[in-house]
Amino acid sequence: MSSKPTVEIPPTVKRPVCFRPTKCQKGDSCYLSRHKEHPGTHHKRDFRNPKYMMSIPEAIKEGQRCLKCIDPPCQASCPTQLDVRTFTNAMGEGNMYAAAKTLFTHNPLAWTCGLLCPTCQACRGSCTLTDTVQGPIHINEMHQVACDAFMHMKIPQIRDPSIVEQPYHKAKIAMIGAGPASLSCATFLARIGYQDITIFEKQSYPGGTPAIEIPEFRIPYHVTRFEVKLVEDLGVKIVYNKTYGKDFTIDSLKQDGYQAIFMGIGFPEAHMVDPFMRHKDLPNVWNSKSFLNAVALASKPGMIEGKVPELPHLPGHVVVCGAGDVAADCCQAAFRCGADFVSLVFRRGSIDMRMNEDEAEHLRVEKVEMVPCHSPTELVIEDGKATGLMCNIMKKIPGTDKYVHDQGQTRVIKFDHVISAFGSLIGTHADPIYEKLVPGRKIEVNEETMASNTEGVFAGGDCVGSGTIVEAVNDGKVAAWGIHRYLAKLISNVEVPAQPTEVPPFMTPVDLVDLSVNIAGMKFPNPFGIASGPSSENCNMLKRAYQAGFGWVVTKTFQPDEDMLENVSPRIVGDAESNTYLNIELNSERTAAYWEKELPKLKKEFPDRILLASIHSKGDLNSWVNLAKRIAATGVDGLQLNISCPNLGEKDSKPFTEVIRETVAAVHAAVPLPLFPKIGHFQGSIVELAKAAKEGGASGVSGVNTISGLWNVTADGKFVPEVGFGPEARTAYGGMSGRAIKPFALSGVAEVCQSVPNFPFLACGGIENALTAWEFIQCGAPAVQFCSASMHKGFKTLIGELIPGLKFLLYARSRDDLKTWKSFVPPAVLAERSHRKRFGLYYDQDEDKEIESLADAKLPAEPIKLKEFVLDQMNGASSSTTPSSIAPEIKTIESEVGTVLNKLVHFNELKPQIKVVSTIDVDRCWNCGRCQTACFDAGYACIIFDRTSRIPKVTPMCHGCGLCAAVCPAKCISMKPKEAKK
Amino acid sequence: MSSKPTVEIPPTVKRPVCFRPTKCQKGDSCYLSRHKEHPGTHHKRDFRNPKYMMSIPEAIKEGQRCLKCIDPPCQASCPTQLDVRTFTNAMGEGNMYAAAKTLFTHNPLAWTCGLLCPTCQACRGSCTLTDTVQGPIHINEMHQVACDAFMHMKIPQIRDPSIVEQPYHKAKIAMIGAGPASLSCATFLARIGYQDITIFEKQSYPGGTPAIEIPEFRIPYHVTRFEVKLVEDLGVKIVYNKTYGKDFTIDSLKQDGYQAIFMGIGFPEAHMVDPFMRHKDLPNVWNSKSFLNAVALASKPGMIEGKVPELPHLPGHVVVCGAGDVAADCCQAAFRCGADFVSLVFRRGSIDMRMNEDEAEHLRVEKVEMVPCHSPTELVIEDGKATGLMCNIMKKIPGTDKYVHDQGQTRVIKFDHVISAFGSLIGTHADPIYEKLVPGRKIEVNEETMASNTEGVFAGGDCVGSGTIVEAVNDGKVAAWGIHRYLAKLISNVEVPAQPTEVPPFMTPVDLVDLSVNIAGMKFPNPFGIASGPSSENCNMLKRAYQAGFGWVVTKTFQPDEDMLENVSPRIVGDAESNTYLNIELNSERTAAYWEKELPKLKKEFPDRILLASIHSKGDLNSWVNLAKRIAATGVDGLQLNISCPNLGEKDSKPFTEVIRETVAAVHAAVPLPLFPKIGHFQGSIVELAKAAKEGGASGVSGVNTISGLWNVTADGKFVPEVGFGPEARTAYGGMSGRAIKPFALSGVAEVCQSVPNFPFLACGGIENALTAWEFIQCGAPAVQFCSASMHKGFKTLIGELIPGLKFLLYARSRDDLKTWKSFVPPAVLAERSHRKRFGLYYDQDEDKEIESLADAKLPAEPIKLKEFVLDQMNGASSSTTPSSIAPEIKTIESEVGTVLNKLVHFNELKPQIKVVSTIDVDRCWNCGRCQTACFDAGYACIIFDRTSRIPKVTPMCHGCGLCAAVCPAKCISMKPKEAKK
Repeated sequence: MSSKPTVEIPPTVKRPVCFRPTKCQKGDSCYLSRHKEHPGTHHKRDFRNPKYMMSIPEAIKEGQRCLKCIDPPCQASCPTQLDVRTFTNAMGEGNMYAAAKTLFTHNPLAWTCGLLCPTCQACRGSCTLTDTVQGPIHINEMHQVACDAFMHMKIPQIRDPSIVEQPYHKAKIAMIGAGPASLSCATFLARIGYQDITIFEKQSYPGGTPAIEIPEFRIPYHVTRFEVKLVEDLGVKIVYNKTYGKDFTIDSLKQDGYQAIFMGIGFPEAHMVDPFMRHKDLPNVWNSKSFLNAVALASKPGMIEGKVPELPHLPGHVVVCGAGDVAADCCQAAFRCGADFVSLVFRRGSIDMRMNEDEAEHLRVEKVEMVPCHSPTELVIEDGKATGLMCNIMKKIPGTDKYVHDQGQTRVIKFDHVISAFGSLIGTHADPIYEKLVPGRKIEVNEETMASNTEGVFAGGDCVGSGTIVEAVNDGKVAAWGIHRYLAKLISNVEVPAQPTEVPPFMTPVDLVDLSVNIAGMKFPNPFGIASGPSSENCNMLKRAYQAGFGWVVTKTFQPDEDMLENVSPRIVGDAESNTYLNIELNSERTAAYWEKELPKLKKEFPDRILLASIHSKGDLNSWVNLAKRIAATGVDGLQLNISCPNLGEKDSKPFTEVIRETVAAVHAAVPLPLFPKIGHFQGSIVELAKAAKEGGASGVSGVNTISGLWNVTADGKFVPEVGFGPEARTAYGGMSGRAIKPFALSGVAEVCQSVPNFPFLACGGIENALTAWEFIQCGAPAVQFCSASMHKGFKTLIGELIPGLKFLLYARSRDDLKTWKSFVPPAVLAERSHRKRFGLYYDQDEDKEIESLADAKLPAEPIKLKEFVLDQMNGASSSTTPSSIAPEIKTIESEVGTVLNKLVHFNELKPQIKVVSTIDVDRCWNCGRCQTACFDAGYACIIFDRTSRIPKVTPMCHGCGLCAAVCPAKCISMKPKEAKK
Repeated sequence: MSSKPTVEIPPTVKRPVCFRPTKCQKGDSCYLSRHKEHPGTHHKRDFRNPKYMMSIPEAIKEGQRCLKCIDPPCQASCPTQLDVRTFTNAMGEGNMYAAAKTLFTHNPLAWTCGLLCPTCQACRGSCTLTDTVQGPIHINEMHQVACDAFMHMKIPQIRDPSIVEQPYHKAKIAMIGAGPASLSCATFLARIGYQDITIFEKQSYPGGTPAIEIPEFRIPYHVTRFEVKLVEDLGVKIVYNKTYGKDFTIDSLKQDGYQAIFMGIGFPEAHMVDPFMRHKDLPNVWNSKSFLNAVALASKPGMIEGKVPELPHLPGHVVVCGAGDVAADCCQAAFRCGADFVSLVFRRGSIDMRMNEDEAEHLRVEKVEMVPCHSPTELVIEDGKATGLMCNIMKKIPGTDKYVHDQGQTRVIKFDHVISAFGSLIGTHADPIYEKLVPGRKIEVNEETMASNTEGVFAGGDCVGSGTIVEAVNDGKVAAWGIHRYLAKLISNVEVPAQPTEVPPFMTPVDLVDLSVNIAGMKFPNPFGIASGPSSENCNMLKRAYQAGFGWVVTKTFQPDEDMLENVSPRIVGDAESNTYLNIELNSERTAAYWEKELPKLKKEFPDRILLASIHSKGDLNSWVNLAKRIAATGVDGLQLNISCPNLGEKDSKPFTEVIRETVAAVHAAVPLPLFPKIGHFQGSIVELAKAAKEGGASGVSGVNTISGLWNVTADGKFVPEVGFGPEARTAYGGMSGRAIKPFALSGVAEVCQSVPNFPFLACGGIENALTAWEFIQCGAPAVQFCSASMHKGFKTLIGELIPGLKFLLYARSRDDLKTWKSFVPPAVLAERSHRKRFGLYYDQDEDKEIESLADAKLPAEPIKLKEFVLDQMNGASSSTTPSSIAPEIKTIESEVGTVLNKLVHFNELKPQIKVVSTIDVDRCWNCGRCQTACFDAGYACIIFDRTSRIPKVTPMCHGCGLCAAVCPAKCISMKPKEAKK
């Protein structure tokens, strides 16, 4: 406790003007640059994704950044019409379960698509935030975070147990090719109820194009395998090594009893043009199909059994011809196969490349030389080997989109290897009916149903001309509905409408968790309610809240006619991003008569939901009683007595506990309904208020109410909000709500629930997602209310995260491997190192070593193992795909209410002798050094930031205060027991 | 008040699975894409900046995103060593004055550099956030926002009035060329104290390269003119139309008495190579200098007097040769001059372009065709006109950085105009001494002093080989110190050190505002104090706080030895981004003896600062009194009595008002110091507490204290923070601090100051910047305290924003044009439309019209006017450059304390009959429609979002609640009087 040894003053910003010669500065700058080049030549044998992978905290922040547009352009721009808003909202709340559920509901290959979609032309390309400094939401990268977290949950997909079995559900359905189109089609048919679906696949492994030809560094095989496993969870069978035209035909399938057939056969042939066609057998002349498949077979862990073939070896100068995304893959793969220099030769100008902008950017980063306006015409052959590419030089015809040969000029480009990448073609198959199906270069289909020109045969994906994976997925989805309509009509003569009213979403055992809870004799279908406030101003709103899925609602507070008040304007200020508001709003502007008339209708329409009316009177107890009686007659389930609104602000000479006790007692004596006085802070001890309420006969309490505060004063001396103008403008204290009051609401609930047990607290105050709801439940509240969060999100987006979220949290309590998770994120994934690029010496040493080890390594001849989690899933999870496998001891809300209260003690009972110290995970550190800033000016000066490695170190003097962990932007500091520290 | 007419259900997200055929979806996507192409051909005669301009709210958010690195790599990577951290911190707090002051302190051409710097290789390129999803801080774009706001403040630069005049300050100094190097050199010399500085400029206008050849769309002329005006504010003279070698020489200057000469003569000649040199007189053969200067003269408003020359007209195909940034400017300028197609022809490969990445990106966006690996050798001449460019085709030598002619292959590229852009060369000047100065291709200098090989002659910028504007600025800066050292030695034989201890910063009359305030007989040098807490744990910290510039400090609370407690660990949790923390920390772990020993030393070292000691005792009144007596003897200025710490949590049977009154009275009777009991919320009425304190004899109160709350419970039932492990882990209620409690702190201060007038409130609770400090001052607090904000920012960064910020706010009160500003941002700029790109039909109509009108317009033959604000500045402001011109009625803190309290009334006094309604500024709207979401589920359903134009409209039913304005992410909704609405 004496003064400590002097510590070194930390490095810091140079504040005074300094005169550093330009030349000297250039050295520093070069050393500090984060723009390290990452050329393709650094990636030899490196099949890791070269893109920066978003961390979980970043993904959550990205979700919060989404504006939640009312009519989301991202959804409209997605071929599968993915509900991006529900997804990003779930991500923003950290709810990976709800996020993944949303993804897979609309797109069974959402993880694949997140990796492969040309999003700059789809969701991301139409994001409302595009033209802002921070740019559009990185929707696709968030897919990966959500799906990865979901995979770690080890939860199978199940069929909706509520589906009523129909005769046509038993129809035999065949799919040809286990690629994206078929996998999608099979998923939706199985969700609709079809039970006998078989996919016939030519290869010994599933996945189609993403497995066969898209390199591992763009889509790791475990992603493909995991999504196939989800399809298998639904009982879909996949038969391997069966070739269409050889092992079976359309007719043979029909003879085997298949009543509908889906062709997802892709474009298996390379589009070979002269001169590549003529010279295709030369050893250094490749085409995209042969090259990329050889790369995939050698680099995708676990894809094939037995010996893994050698990776193709393409040293020297590799020329890739073509300008599409496949050509881009060839360029990047060539570097991984040893190329020293890669050129991309293409016919059109650099301004008219077909490649999507994201791919082009990767090629720039990896330093692929662009050779625009060159049209290959001939190969130069020397000693039986191709050595050069003869090209016509092209030019653009002004004002058109066309290119022509420029004045007869030509050029020869020398190379060591050449890869032609001019796209793909539909295959040839020895099936008599095939010629009819393919009148031109693709299978002709009705785009609305994906039905081909042959009875019972449907098709989608590449083979009908859809160019991207996500379009193939959508073709399969649309075909699923087409097949359903076809079979229902064929077998049961049922006319299915062109668009479904509802199709079961992606479901898992989590969705079967029961969220209902009994409170004061009422059964709440779920604990989520709309609080008395702007969102419950009228019965139309309450109806929409019920329709969205809320289990209960409280009307906006209303009053006897003699108390009617008019609201001032403006009266709400706040901020959606921080979900914090202040209002100087009063009660409802609707009369008691309005509520008397409308409430019975609402209750009648939603008899299973709970309806509470919130009332208030400025008058005497009689006035309270009279209003309560009128409203009790409407059939509401209970009453909230809004005694504590800070805006109403009446002053009473009596202690507030007395007011509550009397008022509750009077109403209790008069009406037979459960009563919930609304209580809050700043009116004396909240525990005493609750006790008084209980003594008066209340069934519980509601709260906390908004807390009195002032929002803001501007530089020119105006309050926000202010009523009136100029010198006449005035303001009053308002009620704060939302995130800012959550710590006070939570402590209020905990205090009351500790001191007044078995007295239900209908909690509100900054509850905004499943996790915060769960906090309040754990602290003793059996039901929770929402106001601020619904104000900017709307009811549906809000509840869309709450219900799956709370179900997962309850489900997780019943599984040992999940119940230690601190949120929806697996601790293992949180701790995993991201592909972060460092700078300075530390970076160089670290990264050079890694690159070296990869380049030296021979890929093993033994099969490489799939990610452990996918293997686990594939081996063990199939037995748990039916609802019956859910653990019988799934927790209910009632079993979990108040479980943490025993941990909350008086400060004096905490043990100062237990010591923790800060531990920095340097692999996840961002090297900002904020930890030292904080430790120095507000801690104990026990962190030293090294200016060279830019790594902070904790000294043994650490007091364990935790401030560094609080301020760390990378969240890489944790507090560990002192003795356990390494 | 009856039920309202039904409104249309708003558009919304499609939540159920839907089956939309791929083909149909493609149509929607195309319509919604935000990736509208913006080719150069759309920019004919359009000299607006084609880049997206950051809005003010975005710039503020960007400042908040900055991590405030401890050893900022951005600063080290800036040639001028700009203090980026202090700048971004000021921006994040919305303090444009402090931001601009920081910029101009280090770099007098910071606005120019913000526009022109290759930041991907400098500050931005080394940002710690580079490798995160949202990427590096856009430092340079923030420059523009800060400088633009500052320009609107119409505040001149002044010399530091505290400089003691030295004989050498009167030395005559000449600068040659009014470009960046000279302007910078002149500024720093003037700030150091030199009074007789003359710049000789060849042109009739100042600015150098940015004026002469960088196009208006990259740097608007008003920026150049404004920065020149700031130099002129310091008394620097600029003489125009004086050509070096013609009108004067080094010798003639020396004869005229100039004792130091700075050469900022640039590289005025184009680097012309064959065949361009040979054919330079052909009408369609341009070089970068001749072309860009012609463009500048025709397009820069106000640069030259008299008739404006015609813009060069370059229709058809324009070929630009070169690969540097100047070539990029030529390409973009060519489009503005009518080019239909622009090709960039260069010798090296696309992977080895010299151009910086940002420029390359602009060329891609504008669709400049890249022709890499072409080395021009000859021009094809037909009919006296160049029609084609003969090029050698080049290839890279593997493993090197070199290119060679590829197998003798050549090509001819046809064109209508060709521009050679191979850089610049030093000029020829008719001065005998010139040959000695330029032994090679540049002036040779000593890099540490910028002294040339000729006595008294210094040089910097292009002419010494510095390639960028910012390097030229830094050369001028370094040369200023070199000249200062030279003259001081020469004239007064004073040895000036190689690095200054201090150089006056950018100063304005604002910096002369007095921030001192008298409270309870103590004179506080400024109202900013460090609150009792983690940042005042020991005297080393307090010393650093004083050194940083805080006017006063309060020690961490300490206690008699018998009360000593050990702190638990961890004990602080929180979040730097939201500046909100919770702690379960107790008093100081230092003994009273420690403080007794250290406090006198501290007071002695900083006699003009105020020092308060915070004490607490768990014992009886005697124990308080004894401790107070011991500490009073240390020479502290006053005592804070920390009676209300929520963590100490003692329960007393007496009412809390009674405890305060007694304790204060006892200490008051014993020690003659001002006493400030610390009070807070949740302990009864804060007004009653203050009254009791006053009755007890306190000089004022301090507060509000932290507010009791709970931070968080994780999904697995652990509290955050938690002391101990496993089932034994426990927590206690903690004290919330920071931003979350600001509304409650502000209301507490206002309530007390209204009810207990003339009783100083030393305010704390979420005060984090000059604007929040100003709020508390306006609500009655004469001094403010900081804790949470200092914890992650550190003392220096925090105070660096506070002092200039509050000075500006007080200064603004004395100027009619500034006192209506709501913050540091001019209302006019806030309302200005940014260059936002829209999508959908609205975009097309709107944008097409604008483009058409520009392309049709002939630029006026009359001079185009400079921006009004610059003109105002140039005309009027020079008279106010001396300190004496500051308005005598500059406000003081004392005159402004509590000025808004009269506006704060009881809710019942607000007038509901005054109505406002929402007004949407559609030009600033982001088209997200969140306003309708909010209005529908939580308002009055009075906003309709149009799905086609994506513009929301407010219906006449608007209730004026203000919710839409609160949730709007673009902040484009304001509340206007109902009748005044258009």
